Amino acid sequence: MASSTGDNKKYKVIGTRPIRHDGADKVTGRAIYGSDVRLNGAVHGKILRSPHAHAQIKSIDTSAAEKLPGVCAVATGADFPDLKDKIANLGEGAVNLAHLSANVLAHRKVLYKGHAVAAVAATNPHVAEEALKLIKVEYEPLESVTWVLDAMRAGAPLLHDNVVTNSMGKKADKPSNVPTHIHFEMGKVDEAFAKADIVIEREYKTASVHQGYIEPHVATALWNEDGHLTLWTSTQGSFTARQQTAELLQIPISRVTVVPCEIGGGFGGKIAVYLEHVAAMLSRKCGRPVKMTMNRDEVFEGTGPTPGSFVRVKLGATKTGQLVAGEAYLAYDAGAFPGGMIGPGCMCVFSCYEIPNARVDGYDVLANKPKTQAYRAPGATQAAFACESMMDELAEKLGIDPIELRLRNAAKEGTRRVDGPTYPRVGFIETLQAAKASEHWKSPLKGPHRGRGIASGYWFNIGLKSSAAGNVNPDGTVSLIEGSTDIGGTRTSVAMQLAETLGIAAEEVMPRVADTDGVGYTDVTGGSRVTFATGLAAYEVGLDIRRQMTERAALVFKCDPAAVECVDGMYKANGKSLTFRELAGKLGQTGGPVVGRAAVDPEGPSNGFGTHIVDVEVDPETAKVTILRYTVIQDAGRAIHPSYVEGQMQGGAVQGIGWALNEEYVFDDQGRMQNPNYLDYRMPTALDVPMIETIIVEVPNPAHPYGVRGVGETPIVAPPAAIAAAIYKATGVRARELPISPPRLWAAMAAKKP
Amino acid sequence: MASSTGDNKKYKVIGTRPIRHDGADKVTGRAIYGSDVRLNGAVHGKILRSPHAHAQIKSIDTSAAEKLPGVCAVATGADFPDLKDKIANLGEGAVNLAHLSANVLAHRKVLYKGHAVAAVAATNPHVAEEALKLIKVEYEPLESVTWVLDAMRAGAPLLHDNVVTNSMGKKADKPSNVPTHIHFEMGKVDEAFAKADIVIEREYKTASVHQGYIEPHVATALWNEDGHLTLWTSTQGSFTARQQTAELLQIPISRVTVVPCEIGGGFGGKIAVYLEHVAAMLSRKCGRPVKMTMNRDEVFEGTGPTPGSFVRVKLGATKTGQLVAGEAYLAYDAGAFPGGMIGPGCMCVFSCYEIPNARVDGYDVLANKPKTQAYRAPGATQAAFACESMMDELAEKLGIDPIELRLRNAAKEGTRRVDGPTYPRVGFIETLQAAKASEHWKSPLKGPHRGRGIASGYWFNIGLKSSAAGNVNPDGTVSLIEGSTDIGGTRTSVAMQLAETLGIAAEEVMPRVADTDGVGYTDVTGGSRVTFATGLAAYEVGLDIRRQMTERAALVFKCDPAAVECVDGMYKANGKSLTFRELAGKLGQTGGPVVGRAAVDPEGPSNGFGTHIVDVEVDPETAKVTILRYTVIQDAGRAIHPSYVEGQMQGGAVQGIGWALNEEYVFDDQGRMQNPNYLDYRMPTALDVPMIETIIVEVPNPAHPYGVRGVGETPIVAPPAAIAAAIYKATGVRARELPISPPRLWAAMAAKKP
Repeated sequence: MASSTGDNKKYKVIGTRPIRHDGADKVTGRAIYGSDVRLNGAVHGKILRSPHAHAQIKSIDTSAAEKLPGVCAVATGADFPDLKDKIANLGEGAVNLAHLSANVLAHRKVLYKGHAVAAVAATNPHVAEEALKLIKVEYEPLESVTWVLDAMRAGAPLLHDNVVTNSMGKKADKPSNVPTHIHFEMGKVDEAFAKADIVIEREYKTASVHQGYIEPHVATALWNEDGHLTLWTSTQGSFTARQQTAELLQIPISRVTVVPCEIGGGFGGKIAVYLEHVAAMLSRKCGRPVKMTMNRDEVFEGTGPTPGSFVRVKLGATKTGQLVAGEAYLAYDAGAFPGGMIGPGCMCVFSCYEIPNARVDGYDVLANKPKTQAYRAPGATQAAFACESMMDELAEKLGIDPIELRLRNAAKEGTRRVDGPTYPRVGFIETLQAAKASEHWKSPLKGPHRGRGIASGYWFNIGLKSSAAGNVNPDGTVSLIEGSTDIGGTRTSVAMQLAETLGIAAEEVMPRVADTDGVGYTDVTGGSRVTFATGLAAYEVGLDIRRQMTERAALVFKCDPAAVECVDGMYKANGKSLTFRELAGKLGQTGGPVVGRAAVDPEGPSNGFGTHIVDVEVDPETAKVTILRYTVIQDAGRAIHPSYVEGQMQGGAVQGIGWALNEEYVFDDQGRMQNPNYLDYRMPTALDVPMIETIIVEVPNPAHPYGVRGVGETPIVAPPAAIAAAIYKATGVRARELPISPPRLWAAMAAKKP
Repeated sequence: MASSTGDNKKYKVIGTRPIRHDGADKVTGRAIYGSDVRLNGAVHGKILRSPHAHAQIKSIDTSAAEKLPGVCAVATGADFPDLKDKIANLGEGAVNLAHLSANVLAHRKVLYKGHAVAAVAATNPHVAEEALKLIKVEYEPLESVTWVLDAMRAGAPLLHDNVVTNSMGKKADKPSNVPTHIHFEMGKVDEAFAKADIVIEREYKTASVHQGYIEPHVATALWNEDGHLTLWTSTQGSFTARQQTAELLQIPISRVTVVPCEIGGGFGGKIAVYLEHVAAMLSRKCGRPVKMTMNRDEVFEGTGPTPGSFVRVKLGATKTGQLVAGEAYLAYDAGAFPGGMIGPGCMCVFSCYEIPNARVDGYDVLANKPKTQAYRAPGATQAAFACESMMDELAEKLGIDPIELRLRNAAKEGTRRVDGPTYPRVGFIETLQAAKASEHWKSPLKGPHRGRGIASGYWFNIGLKSSAAGNVNPDGTVSLIEGSTDIGGTRTSVAMQLAETLGIAAEEVMPRVADTDGVGYTDVTGGSRVTFATGLAAYEVGLDIRRQMTERAALVFKCDPAAVECVDGMYKANGKSLTFRELAGKLGQTGGPVVGRAAVDPEGPSNGFGTHIVDVEVDPETAKVTILRYTVIQDAGRAIHPSYVEGQMQGGAVQGIGWALNEEYVFDDQGRMQNPNYLDYRMPTALDVPMIETIIVEVPNPAHPYGVRGVGETPIVAPPAAIAAAIYKATGVRARELPISPPRLWAAMAAKKP
């Protein structure tokens, strides 16, 4: 179901639902994922991981492992360049390479259970595992800390006790677990609170959750005899993987080729490298291709979860529901190294509303957990859980409908966000209106122990760099070459924009995700950017091709190129006309092939808003929450391929449901994760969720020729707050800690009983 | 050794000898050739071939083969579309698809021994071979003919007796084995002969020889469930293979992706498809990838040799050695289907000389041999063997030095060739002068049974279409994407032209040969065109990149782009300057990546001339000819990478030596080849030839920005005539039939003895 707002442009391709170009390969098992890469002579790499959450490494003795028959190479952190505090800009932002390096293979200290310590390559995975057991590591265990507030406390065990730096390499005053403090402020906050008719303040907590991609990390490296390194890997960004690997090995990027395989889910967790340069080093040592695949427990314990968080929000409003002041305190754990998700958390906590006076303080906090990584709208869900839950409380206290309260305060064109930028045309109000008008919202929810909640969410779409090329085939099809790994059907959403620009069918564009030697620099598939930015590159390729086709048409029509009109893929002049296909068939006789190219770096970010409605039923005996009905309303700007937009909205909502109700890293008192597997780490299955309903709102993005806004991340932001609001309606309990798992909710319900 | 003529431009990259980019992969075995392609679940295809040189197929019964356990699919000609007399332009020229199809899998008739009749795919090659034995083919054998003059005779067995067409599909008047007659004439030929002081006329014969590439034909096909066909194959032209396959299967070219593997030699013989669409059909039938590899006897008996020929030439000259008239009659066998190499033979027979009055008649003749294919300067060697041998006789008769006689008549700028075109600036005279000045020519040849010969040769460089793209990496390197399969080091010769254009090092360009979905349309690697035409595309990519880099430099320098000067890769303005690498590092901050692209279709052909000097010794007892010394002098226009130019000159000369002295298809009276293996088909080995000396002459090609002329084919043209001239000096025998093998030469020497 789609309700459209905004421009009335008629498109032929955009807005239709062609079958995805890679569909057959994916459903028949032909698509090449990382584990399908099998090079001749390849050997298998395995990683030894720390059993301690925090310890000094006194010594590592690999001699026995090296002697085991079948072992080809052994590597430890000592094999890699010492990167000190080198900072590199890796596309999405600056990264401290020493931290990146030490996270992938520990230097001197292990900082979390599962931290990689050494690696072995052997003729088969079993021999490699045997060899791991022969590596003798002498540890001096240290006290560990996993909860963010504990880590901030004076006297907490320090993760980095010698040189303390933040993610940007800036030295802090003294060693601490809080390398970064972010502060945003606008207006007169204290004055506004003093004048407010109503002020409420609440605290919220969230547990670490994992991105939970089905495909574990996998990489194959071949360090060739000429010094050239080729990597086949599951990554969200082949160029970022190339640069990270080159920097970690201190070799030129032109010595590295990254071949991005199909990716079995990433959600932000497959941007940082884990295996790539380790496999490369092992390959260099043994002269053979080295393949490394993580087990599920390695994924949980060794790769990036999203931060656990503590958030305190204070809101002040008038009696009529006008927000006048906001204050937020956010502490997010970064895991073992600085550079967590606190930045976007601070930017997003109040991003849905026009609050004239606001102050935000955010803290990036070190803890003995795997280094946190981006997870779908990183940092926004934790913040929205707090702010949106409070909007629900505020609405209740003021006796205003929660949609109406949001409408009265909704961010719109001209609203200034606390961190600085002022919104251009955005579609938040339209999502609220669509929610209000929706059949779901208007249908009464009947029955006991049931409740309906609503919440909104915001996320950016970053711009960043994309390149693309297009080659016109003599049969009128166009081969499109792009550098964005395809996670959510972007081959098709990008190809459709080229097709629309050229006036041909979606199926007549054949998209190809090239490796790093086959296409121009392209940033990661992340930040909801691909359909927006790589789509823009495809559009520009289309313009480049159209210009050249117009010149060819002029040759055929024997007229000036300026006299050739191009309408809907028809080239017309002097009363004659040629279709794109007809003209493509004449390229051989009019100067040869036509190839188009583009490289873009669009102004970002754009802005995506969504509103979610959820109906729940809570079992009064077990406190198990059942999602009865769920509707996602979101502004897609322009839905290029509505099915994939809906898919993103559904997928994000389901991940948000898991985060809200069940998912969490459970640590013991030694900082060891107790549930590193899918049996004990409870993600929603198809049985746990109803069909997620979707309403696409289209308020075109003025920064994109077709109005595209990224849609991939926004839908994970609202679910926890919406579900908490619904649970409150069903039970009277205001849940302020995620997950709202049965034991926790049951206890709260029990405490509330008279 | 290189002697340079022409312009004095200073180049930094062009003319140097960097290590080839694919060198390490090739010497270490990492390069992926067709036989290295091993897809999961692949099965193996084999072909049943005709035991008869000429027969009607009465019936084919594949039922027993289909029942053999392990057999996955069986195909015959009946499985393929009936192409009637469909003509397709396949880049290098028009092709009769019905003939192409019937050559690859016989329809109704087999036309040569080894003609493919049916194909089987099975779980392993041995089962496939067993299955071939179970296919029952009922033949009605017919009389066969293999020698060109026999085939032309009235009453000769007709190969195509129902519909007779030439290669262009034009109907002939009545069934015959001579589908095409070419006639060129200029001036007043008969008058000129009548006035000539001297007229000589001679007849020459050459045997069929094979290109003799080391790597047999190999192809793997995967017909995917979505109808998309991917082919991994050893081909000289991935786009041509794509189009041939698509046409033969009658599917759109956009449904076919051809991945060109490294190629273990082609020399013209890997342009036509043999296995590709058969493997495709088997794959479609069984749903699995199908790999097919020929044995050596299949290569000899089933793929294209060069024509056997009969050539009669008549030359008229003045006493002072001025050529006044020429007449040539050429009959080349085309093999089993029309469309042999008679065209270029007719164009090349007099192409070295200015002969004001000339007439050429050429005949394309059907014979019961595999369809002939291009072989390095196709058709020119047979013609030059005749004309150049006669120039030697003429020089002797007139008492003029053979170089001097050639100099007096040498084609130069303004010379009109008998088939029409007038030469632009060419370098034939310069090669003759360099030969005359060479240490080899000036050194006396002493000893009995020894002789020195000289001959010249001409070949075109065709233009045709090439596309390329270049992506600037942040470290200042450039990834170059091209579509020309690399046979003779063209990755490097093309990359060097981009490097020169950008003012960077050859090693800073990383060339990649992409598949048909990864780069724009590019014609075959053939016609000595790649360094010329794809090099031109690389140059144009360089210009496109330079334009954009200049704009970026202007942003950095804060000036107008017009104020930025680009000299030797330095971008300068306002007294500031940036190297290409420095500027590349700033692309991320000045608008994003830079990608360049080009597609070219240069005016062709260009013209390449060479002169060869050879010293031989003939064993008086056995008539074995030993090559004592051999020098190739050739105009390269501009030698981009002199080592690879020299390699082409040496390789061509060695193939010419084999053709001159030993190589031949030996047929029995049933038209069956008696020597389809490398033991009995005698190619030169390293022990048979001395180090071939080379002198590169550089007369820049006015049609190319760096003056490039193609160099790959010219060097095979002169050797047989040069060797025959040397043998004459050593023995007094004028050999007029190739190969001048020991038995044939011995007989001639014996006949000559008093």
